[in-house]
Amino acid sequence: MTSSRQPDILISEVGPRDGLQSVKATMATADKCRWIDALVAAGLREIEVASFVPAHLLPQMADAADVVRHALQHRGVTVMALVPNLRGAQAALRAGAQKLTMPVSASAAHSLANVRKTPDAMVEEVRAVLRLRDDIAPGVRVEAGVSTAFGCTLQGHVPEDDVVRLAVQLAEAGADEVGLSDTTGMGNPAQTRRLFSRLFSSIGARTGAAHLHNTRGLGLANALAAYEAGVRTFDSSLGGLGGCPYAPGASGNVVTEDLVFMFEAMGLSTGVDLNRLMAARAPLQAGLPGEPLYGMTPEAGLPKGWRVGAAP
Amino acid sequence: MTSSRQPDILISEVGPRDGLQSVKATMATADKCRWIDALVAAGLREIEVASFVPAHLLPQMADAADVVRHALQHRGVTVMALVPNLRGAQAALRAGAQKLTMPVSASAAHSLANVRKTPDAMVEEVRAVLRLRDDIAPGVRVEAGVSTAFGCTLQGHVPEDDVVRLAVQLAEAGADEVGLSDTTGMGNPAQTRRLFSRLFSSIGARTGAAHLHNTRGLGLANALAAYEAGVRTFDSSLGGLGGCPYAPGASGNVVTEDLVFMFEAMGLSTGVDLNRLMAARAPLQAGLPGEPLYGMTPEAGLPKGWRVGAAP
Repeated sequence: MTSSRQPDILISEVGPRDGLQSVKATMATADKCRWIDALVAAGLREIEVASFVPAHLLPQMADAADVVRHALQHRGVTVMALVPNLRGAQAALRAGAQKLTMPVSASAAHSLANVRKTPDAMVEEVRAVLRLRDDIAPGVRVEAGVSTAFGCTLQGHVPEDDVVRLAVQLAEAGADEVGLSDTTGMGNPAQTRRLFSRLFSSIGARTGAAHLHNTRGLGLANALAAYEAGVRTFDSSLGGLGGCPYAPGASGNVVTEDLVFMFEAMGLSTGVDLNRLMAARAPLQAGLPGEPLYGMTPEAGLPKGWRVGAAP
Repeated sequence: MTSSRQPDILISEVGPRDGLQSVKATMATADKCRWIDALVAAGLREIEVASFVPAHLLPQMADAADVVRHALQHRGVTVMALVPNLRGAQAALRAGAQKLTMPVSASAAHSLANVRKTPDAMVEEVRAVLRLRDDIAPGVRVEAGVSTAFGCTLQGHVPEDDVVRLAVQLAEAGADEVGLSDTTGMGNPAQTRRLFSRLFSSIGARTGAAHLHNTRGLGLANALAAYEAGVRTFDSSLGGLGGCPYAPGASGNVVTEDLVFMFEAMGLSTGVDLNRLMAARAPLQAGLPGEPLYGMTPEAGLPKGWRVGAAP
């Protein structure tokens, strides 16, 4: 089963950042490291391990630099960090992060509530981070993720023209990748296909990841639509960690286990070993006792006779 | 919001049959009737209300004829019943069922375990039911549903050629519609699109419903793929009623609420009012106290600013 070809799909695991910053409990640094080790062992090649924000705002992320340094011991995995601004980028680059992601909201209301900046001011912040990167860490990729790209709980409808215009601004500013985030779980497959198709038309190969939520159960259908539009990088979270405060009981992020199962069952390689991936739930659960984990594939198990890329 | 055009999608609600026969408790006839009334009020235009099987095998369905007769009081809804054999068809037609569905397994192992007949013998049974229909109820449509079309928990892999061959046999026998059922929740979107595309090529307009399960979370993604292949009729179950015994905690049938939300959000009309559909969970829950109901959309609620067929 060994193959030298590049996997078809890049799964970008966001649980250690997006998941952990959404739960109330703070996972101990050693537990985070054990969980990340298990994710690497499962074959994940990109992991968003931390968020570089002031510790008084997000105490769950106070050990961001330590976690980045631990993850850097692994070969073959891109160690990624979220940075909301220039100061965060300085700290992340100092710790050695290999890829940065910056959230830029398409909804002005959400942007002001989230980072107290307008979308235009956030584009300026991305420019500043790119200059810093060029100066001190030219090998580091910078992704901008357009959040609330599919709708906003504050503003409601977000015009697709606004999303595309912002993506173009970010690409022109020099972001290596511009992804789209369904922050609020309001997206549908037709919209997902339309928006990513427009992105490919407008910014070509700079089109980045689909960051989708499963709030209304459409996460995998939206991922399928994004795949069909040409997207090959998908954010997801082990166990769907990262609940939505406005949707009690509903999982937030797309579940990595189910997403990998879908692509592998379709015959698309992810490089991820599903059995080891499910085993990585144990260190997650150990570090966050009592926190509910989601995922249909882990509950049901792999189908009888299931094999990767089974021919028809 | 009133429109005279035919909805784009037909949702065939199977909860009162598929859901109720999968749970241990027996819902009282009056509760079934109240639930069906609420489903009709939500705009569902086809409901599988009962299964005509010996009461000692499925005591939950002992009142099948009464339930059919009650449902027939509604105008504008097709009252559908499952019949496993000629005897069941006789009883269903006597009660006045307007559409029959017969399960025919593509897996010999599953067919023998389920109805103690080979697939070929089941095709003969379909022929017998079609002769009966021609004789005494020529206006009644007969659907054959190819079960285990995407894989089998007993046999494992089910060759696609076997599925297509069986579908062609059933269409040639005279079945008005031939659908495909992912009985075991083993299907994936690529397979779903391939199989339904082959069905349209082989039997054209006789291609029937997609009956999909959400066992591994892929239900809506598979529905999207089936839609893209040309399918316009989808089976689903309110609250995802109908658990999988081999997948504890995993819902079985695709959740009607989530399926309707997906299509309506994409701008495809189903004729179903989502708020009334969610209200139909109350009589279901009242008739089956303590039974878990699934559905992400009911938990999360409709998105802010959501409107049917929202333009981009």
